[in-house]
Amino acid sequence: MYKIAVLPGDGIGPEVINEALKVLDVISKKFNVKFDVKEYAFGGIAIDKFGCPYPKETENACLNSDAVLLGAVGGYKWDILNGDKRPEAGLLALRKSLGVYANLRPATLFKPLKSASPLKDELLKDGLDILVVRELTGGMYFGPRGTEKIDGGFKAYDTEVYETAEIKRIAITAFETARKRNKKITSVDKANILDTSRLWRSIVNEISKDYPDVELNHMYVDNCAMQLIKDPSQFDIILTSNIFGDILSDEASQLTGSIGMLPSASLRGDKVGLYEPIHGSAPDIAGTKKANPLATILSVAMMLEYSFDMKDASNAIKEAVNKVLEDGYRTADLGKGKLVNTEEMGDKVAEYI
Amino acid sequence: MYKIAVLPGDGIGPEVINEALKVLDVISKKFNVKFDVKEYAFGGIAIDKFGCPYPKETENACLNSDAVLLGAVGGYKWDILNGDKRPEAGLLALRKSLGVYANLRPATLFKPLKSASPLKDELLKDGLDILVVRELTGGMYFGPRGTEKIDGGFKAYDTEVYETAEIKRIAITAFETARKRNKKITSVDKANILDTSRLWRSIVNEISKDYPDVELNHMYVDNCAMQLIKDPSQFDIILTSNIFGDILSDEASQLTGSIGMLPSASLRGDKVGLYEPIHGSAPDIAGTKKANPLATILSVAMMLEYSFDMKDASNAIKEAVNKVLEDGYRTADLGKGKLVNTEEMGDKVAEYI
Ligand SMILES: CC(C)[C@H](C(=O)O)[C@@H](O)C(=O)O
Ligand SMILES: CC(C)[C@H](C(=O)O)[C@@H](O)C(=O)O
Repeated sequence: MYKIAVLPGDGIGPEVINEALKVLDVISKKFNVKFDVKEYAFGGIAIDKFGCPYPKETENACLNSDAVLLGAVGGYKWDILNGDKRPEAGLLALRKSLGVYANLRPATLFKPLKSASPLKDELLKDGLDILVVRELTGGMYFGPRGTEKIDGGFKAYDTEVYETAEIKRIAITAFETARKRNKKITSVDKANILDTSRLWRSIVNEISKDYPDVELNHMYVDNCAMQLIKDPSQFDIILTSNIFGDILSDEASQLTGSIGMLPSASLRGDKVGLYEPIHGSAPDIAGTKKANPLATILSVAMMLEYSFDMKDASNAIKEAVNKVLEDGYRTADLGKGKLVNTEEMGDKVAEYI
Repeated sequence: MYKIAVLPGDGIGPEVINEALKVLDVISKKFNVKFDVKEYAFGGIAIDKFGCPYPKETENACLNSDAVLLGAVGGYKWDILNGDKRPEAGLLALRKSLGVYANLRPATLFKPLKSASPLKDELLKDGLDILVVRELTGGMYFGPRGTEKIDGGFKAYDTEVYETAEIKRIAITAFETARKRNKKITSVDKANILDTSRLWRSIVNEISKDYPDVELNHMYVDNCAMQLIKDPSQFDIILTSNIFGDILSDEASQLTGSIGMLPSASLRGDKVGLYEPIHGSAPDIAGTKKANPLATILSVAMMLEYSFDMKDASNAIKEAVNKVLEDGYRTADLGKGKLVNTEEMGDKVAEYI
């Protein structure tokens, strides 16, 4: 029996989580596996109830689970709060407390949705299948920071920090993952300017010696932001730091035109993982039943694969999603087709499994 | 008489500078203005000759000029050098010594080149005309940095630092520029995470009170990387920090499909400015006469406008460039048309003026 801590969060979070749990239930029956699923307060709703975005009870539950499934956090009402009181601070604390340093963000073009990509057809070739491997518990997100009063105003700073061991482990994740894919990594940094990037590059080069079968290139982050648009099919795995990964993974996912479709996994080298859609809490459409639950449903598929070694069950979900799309069912964000709402989309996937 | 320090630099730098000077010469005759033009060593070539990328003689000349015109720097052969010995270090020192804190990078779609954009036609609407206003002498590029030995390896750090005064002056540049354009600014930061971004946002809000006629929005950098692809026509001016501006301006310029066409200006509030194409030194095509000189020629147009108040002369160049393109002349990077080489393209523009 696997223990899953579920954090529905804010905005459309609870709505998409509902559908993901519906699908998980079908998997449980079909594959005869028991999941111990409990929901906990997290994000803005936890601020309202407990005064902090990642309450102790939630933390304890997450630390004692095999996997954490997250909806989305944040909303207008909490935007005025100070840095460490915001829903986003809870997200950072969650990642750090779980120690999930490797954030895997696939940017996949779903064949039936090819026309949704903003790129011209000839650039898409046989589709897009990029995996961004983003370092998630280091860099500027967690380095020393502060704001000081000075003559005439303030001085603020944030520090990008990386140590050898942090770079090593994320590089190893990327190289191991590359072996299961097309054996090609583009490591992205700003080594012409940053000390952290030069250390990053040298460690990645060192690790690559243990993987002579994997092709490694280095690219500057500004060039990568260009190349993703110019010739996206040159990329297989993009390995990069926390802040660069934040930017580049959003860019890459937009290229697929299916941001409502993309899941993510955050891992730490054992079986424990944090799974969440890459989209946000979309407060503007919360409650309208327009949200696309597929990214969260596909996050469950990643959870089955990475945390529970249930590759067949994972594939069953992915195939069902593809079939539902092929048969023309679409939530509002996906463009023309048989329009369905959040629940109907969840029902369809459950039915097709 | 205006004094211009010319830094041809490396790779295709000297080739494109030649054509820009050809055009400047025609302007000088047609508008009866004298330019005192002298070339100085800078970048890799200065490393080879003088052991440093920004020699004292070059610095003195730049500091005593009305404008600096730069080709491009860098190449494979200097990539192995250490941080502060590289051509890029010269570029940073040049920007800093001139104090040119405001980097203006237009991402313009040239109508005759519309089909070169990687984006689908329906996203381009009436073309693209985005101006990235990038802070150029602060942030991570110049903050404290270092690499220390620690147990089991190294620890490296870079510091993003911004003070009130630095943010104020770049914000003022953006708002003043917005008044000459569509009165719309998107300020880009990562205020949900970074202290520097929160200071950035508050100062930009403060300055905006003096410009009630200019519309201001704030956007997170990851979202901006997405929105640029999803709906680029929502942007007019993007105001952002040094590192985010580096990434986003490259992304924005790639959207136009005409990266060989885009100039830039770096200013400091008086008339002095540094002008350069946004493309790099392209060592792979250096010497083949394939380089597109139009970005450098258009940088001269920006120089005439911003440093010499010669708006008519500036427009004469821009119109000539447009006409040359409309008549079908193309360097190799621009796709199908009447193929011309670097010099022929320069000749054509000179002739059309
Ligand atoms: C909400 C924010 C703190 C977060 C991040 O920057 O990591 C988000 O953008 C993401 O990519 O998961
Ligand atoms: C060459 C490099 C140091 C430079 C930068 O990052 O500023 C370049 O990318 C640019 O944008 O002008």
